[in-house]
Amino acid sequence: MSKSFAVARLDTQQIDFDSQLTALLSWDAVSDLSVVAAVEEIISAVKAEGDQALLRYNNRFDNMQAGSITELELSQAKIAQSLAAITAEQRQALELAANRIRKYHQHQRQESWSYTETDGTVLGQQITALEKVGVYVPGGKAAYPSTVLMDVIPAKVAGVEEIIMVTPTPAGVLADVVIAAAAIAGVDRVFTVGGAQAIAALAYGTESIPKVDKIVGPGNIFVATAKRQVFGQVGLDMIAGPSEILVICDGQTDPDWIAMDLFSQAEHDENAQSILVCPDAKFIDRVEESIQKLLPTMERASIIAESLSRRGALIKVDDMAEAMEVCNRIAPEHLELSVADPQALLSSIKHAGAIFMGRHTSEALGDYCAGPNHVLPTSGTVRFSSPLGVYDFQKRSSIIHCSEEGASVLGKTASILARSESLTAHAQSAEFRIIKD
Amino acid sequence: MSKSFAVARLDTQQIDFDSQLTALLSWDAVSDLSVVAAVEEIISAVKAEGDQALLRYNNRFDNMQAGSITELELSQAKIAQSLAAITAEQRQALELAANRIRKYHQHQRQESWSYTETDGTVLGQQITALEKVGVYVPGGKAAYPSTVLMDVIPAKVAGVEEIIMVTPTPAGVLADVVIAAAAIAGVDRVFTVGGAQAIAALAYGTESIPKVDKIVGPGNIFVATAKRQVFGQVGLDMIAGPSEILVICDGQTDPDWIAMDLFSQAEHDENAQSILVCPDAKFIDRVEESIQKLLPTMERASIIAESLSRRGALIKVDDMAEAMEVCNRIAPEHLELSVADPQALLSSIKHAGAIFMGRHTSEALGDYCAGPNHVLPTSGTVRFSSPLGVYDFQKRSSIIHCSEEGASVLGKTASILARSESLTAHAQSAEFRIIKD
Repeated sequence: MSKSFAVARLDTQQIDFDSQLTALLSWDAVSDLSVVAAVEEIISAVKAEGDQALLRYNNRFDNMQAGSITELELSQAKIAQSLAAITAEQRQALELAANRIRKYHQHQRQESWSYTETDGTVLGQQITALEKVGVYVPGGKAAYPSTVLMDVIPAKVAGVEEIIMVTPTPAGVLADVVIAAAAIAGVDRVFTVGGAQAIAALAYGTESIPKVDKIVGPGNIFVATAKRQVFGQVGLDMIAGPSEILVICDGQTDPDWIAMDLFSQAEHDENAQSILVCPDAKFIDRVEESIQKLLPTMERASIIAESLSRRGALIKVDDMAEAMEVCNRIAPEHLELSVADPQALLSSIKHAGAIFMGRHTSEALGDYCAGPNHVLPTSGTVRFSSPLGVYDFQKRSSIIHCSEEGASVLGKTASILARSESLTAHAQSAEFRIIKD
Repeated sequence: MSKSFAVARLDTQQIDFDSQLTALLSWDAVSDLSVVAAVEEIISAVKAEGDQALLRYNNRFDNMQAGSITELELSQAKIAQSLAAITAEQRQALELAANRIRKYHQHQRQESWSYTETDGTVLGQQITALEKVGVYVPGGKAAYPSTVLMDVIPAKVAGVEEIIMVTPTPAGVLADVVIAAAAIAGVDRVFTVGGAQAIAALAYGTESIPKVDKIVGPGNIFVATAKRQVFGQVGLDMIAGPSEILVICDGQTDPDWIAMDLFSQAEHDENAQSILVCPDAKFIDRVEESIQKLLPTMERASIIAESLSRRGALIKVDDMAEAMEVCNRIAPEHLELSVADPQALLSSIKHAGAIFMGRHTSEALGDYCAGPNHVLPTSGTVRFSSPLGVYDFQKRSSIIHCSEEGASVLGKTASILARSESLTAHAQSAEFRIIKD
């Protein structure tokens, strides 16, 4: 921490506040053209050659010498071994978290519905689970068992028939805690393949890897680019940007808590964004002091410092009403309402992925074990999208069952509208079902 | 109809049936690179220059000489004029359709929910409507009032605050029935601009056009390409491929009805796909006769002939169980179950956008006025997506409100999991909330 370090301070009273905020929030997610070209080549090869291309790329990128994809599938014995390798404390924590996540997500299950009209016509929606889902789990440093739970459990609750996990093992290294989380969450099959080649295999299928209907899970730029390319061939969760937290504080919380909450987002990576909004300038000073005091004690101090100085901000607002306006402008992934009465603010919040209410609800609780999903829309996309949930693993078919009488009555209206659109086969198809007097 | 015309006949008994079916279903939706480049230029210009670029491109492509975007907004007086210009029969049909669509979609509204744990911790989801939605409506030949109803009514039912419609008016020509449908559906503002420039304006906002959160509605290749490009900046409904119908018939329906049902899909455009699956070869012969007999009487005979010969098929299966397998392989946008007991087949259907049950439920009824939405996933994407609905205009925020006791208990688990991921700021943020004994 030798280099100088400061978090930007903004004030809504500054005349250029709006443009400063715009600059702070801007994030360009476009993939480099060389990455796009490399990924296109990998996808085409896997689509055309199947296992052979998958194996070739995977051995190259993971520095492996596997002889076939079959030998890269983890056996049940290997999975049991990973489950036995973690500590009892870790296993208990994973199981407690899994149970809480399962319980919360059960509230999201949607059921088929229908209603019958007086003439006997039945209308409704049949809601079913996706058949096969692929889960991408990054390897190496960013091996997060919590993400395995968050990606897999909603699919299980939805009733997905088969969940296939792929995860790279650079130089053959496998994280036991990640495999243990997969076993606890209920993954059906695990292949130790990764990168764009694993995404291509899931999207198109190979001799060994089943073709899936949807792919979820985070990954590096090659994985994210590959997901974009196969969209349409399969469904996707989202292309996540850097993680963000907005803390709104009334100035009455322990400033050390607020500093640590900002750190907990900033430690993810240098592009993560931590913002505090508060009407009390003196309190902001105290948080700044806590930041300077606590930063040197942190294991990831350099990442936190880089993230806070690059993309962090401490924003002074006039009052809590203005704090809500700034919040809705930012549309944060994570929103912490560190205030006495968070309930009073709830109806003013238009856009937020997850809302952590009150001084005691740190975001970290939601990241791991409170129950709600930690896969959330980033970069302002909460304006139109939602946390990952059971609904992402269910789909709907409309049901229309007209009685003879219903078809006859509706046929007259359909005929008029079809003819106004010059679609006369539509009109005649409806007219055939009109009962002749 | 001078040129020879035939619909492909397939049989599951043929040894190459599987590859024939694959070839039949294949559809490549990739945009031409010259289109991508042209669209990128338009989007960049509108993003940078706002109204000025929007006006320039719109005048050029629609062959207009408008002086400002403001004069391209339809006044309430102009909208009322369109409503008065359609026939009483058309107005009544639009209103009846709108009412039925509204009633059906009200069943899809989702409400916020929460539950309280024994220690006082509250978990749930706050469900809110999107703020602003843009609806693209094609102009010219493909002016479909029914699509206006289908795109707008679910957004209104969801509670969207403002719905902005854009529609091109090539050479100044405006379809009264489309504007009347917009008025009946409840559109807030209408701008007569179109193409990629209108999509860019809705995505980024200009001086005159509000920036929206989501864009829905079909369009030509420039519109579809522009939608792809702005995805992430705004939400999207879907990028629709050609429309498809699969009719499964037991051989007991009037073959003229089946032929006309196939025509009603084929008349959309030359790439539309109409497929009949039936276990009765003799019945397929009769449908073929009906096709040859009825085709010359159709207004769009040449489009229908082109579509049926290019992408249509009559498929003979062994029995209804095999028909279900073929159906799930195809994953059709529209599925007609023209059989005596469609209910008996329902649980076997894994993938279909909308299911039209029984001999009397022609697809045309669902296209216009039965109630369900006619905006449906195409090209097999029903495997992972759903009809347009109210849920597409609602979004969810997770709610997590831990009691002091709850935060203390959960903090211990969060701490263990965070440390297993080497995220120690996360761990400390949770640990701060653990109550010291």
